[in-house]
Amino acid sequence: MTSIEADKDLPIIRITRDFAATPAQLMRAHTDPELFVLWVGPDAITTKVDHWDARTGGSWRYVSEHDGQEFAFHGSFHQVGADRIVQTFTFEGQPDDVALETLWFEDLGDGRTRLHAQSLVDSFEGRDAWLQSGMEVGVNEGYAKLERLAVDGRI
Amino acid sequence: MTSIEADKDLPIIRITRDFAATPAQLMRAHTDPELFVLWVGPDAITTKVDHWDARTGGSWRYVSEHDGQEFAFHGSFHQVGADRIVQTFTFEGQPDDVALETLWFEDLGDGRTRLHAQSLVDSFEGRDAWLQSGMEVGVNEGYAKLERLAVDGRI
Repeated sequence: MTSIEADKDLPIIRITRDFAATPAQLMRAHTDPELFVLWVGPDAITTKVDHWDARTGGSWRYVSEHDGQEFAFHGSFHQVGADRIVQTFTFEGQPDDVALETLWFEDLGDGRTRLHAQSLVDSFEGRDAWLQSGMEVGVNEGYAKLERLAVDGRI
Repeated sequence: MTSIEADKDLPIIRITRDFAATPAQLMRAHTDPELFVLWVGPDAITTKVDHWDARTGGSWRYVSEHDGQEFAFHGSFHQVGADRIVQTFTFEGQPDDVALETLWFEDLGDGRTRLHAQSLVDSFEGRDAWLQSGMEVGVNEGYAKLERLAVDGRI
């Protein structure tokens, strides 16, 4: 099950989810663009990577399509570590809004990993608008696809 | 005069300072590495750029030296716009701490510009530690050097 929570005192959304996958498998699924597009976002979209350089100091851009409408996103990889990714994130429909995202992969042993994701923005209004945007559909369906990739041995 | 303020409700430091310079001059002073090292930080340090790619999706790293001690910093340029820079910032002495910085240059007319800087972190403790670190010396002395570069026609 995926947990999505708003911090009480900070403009932060925190997500945790356990996977039947190792930290290295989850890292690959987040850094290899051919794997990333297989799971990111809701089931109803298809995603194409426009630019992808998954290293500390690199950057990324992808475009998701749903019913002929395109939604583009871009950001920078501040850090790509062994079990930690820190990146910026902008939805190009709101180009002045920037989130700082931190992902880390906690090894639970026995081939299981807890993913922790933290998204920090500069206002509670912006944070709450994200929570009310239907983001949980993309998070839940996306992570279900990621879990299937691991179970099927594709990552 | 430089104003440095902690937000009451958010883990943010906000800095404003007026300059006898145009927005374009301030943008050059923040994006040209040869100009940047002439003003950044306290008077007592010397700074060398290790890596610099001032464009949306680029990254940077510099090393400041004081009395034989080196202090390194790095980050990513999330956005380099006409009058706005959004970047990440890490002091390598605390490699897990990341700030999201937004700078913008407000044209006051008559060759004057108000610089606005916002630094967002993910805890009030981290924000307050920055404020108590003596950062205002670097900010005040650095911006005084930047002002002199403008007055001397060097930017």
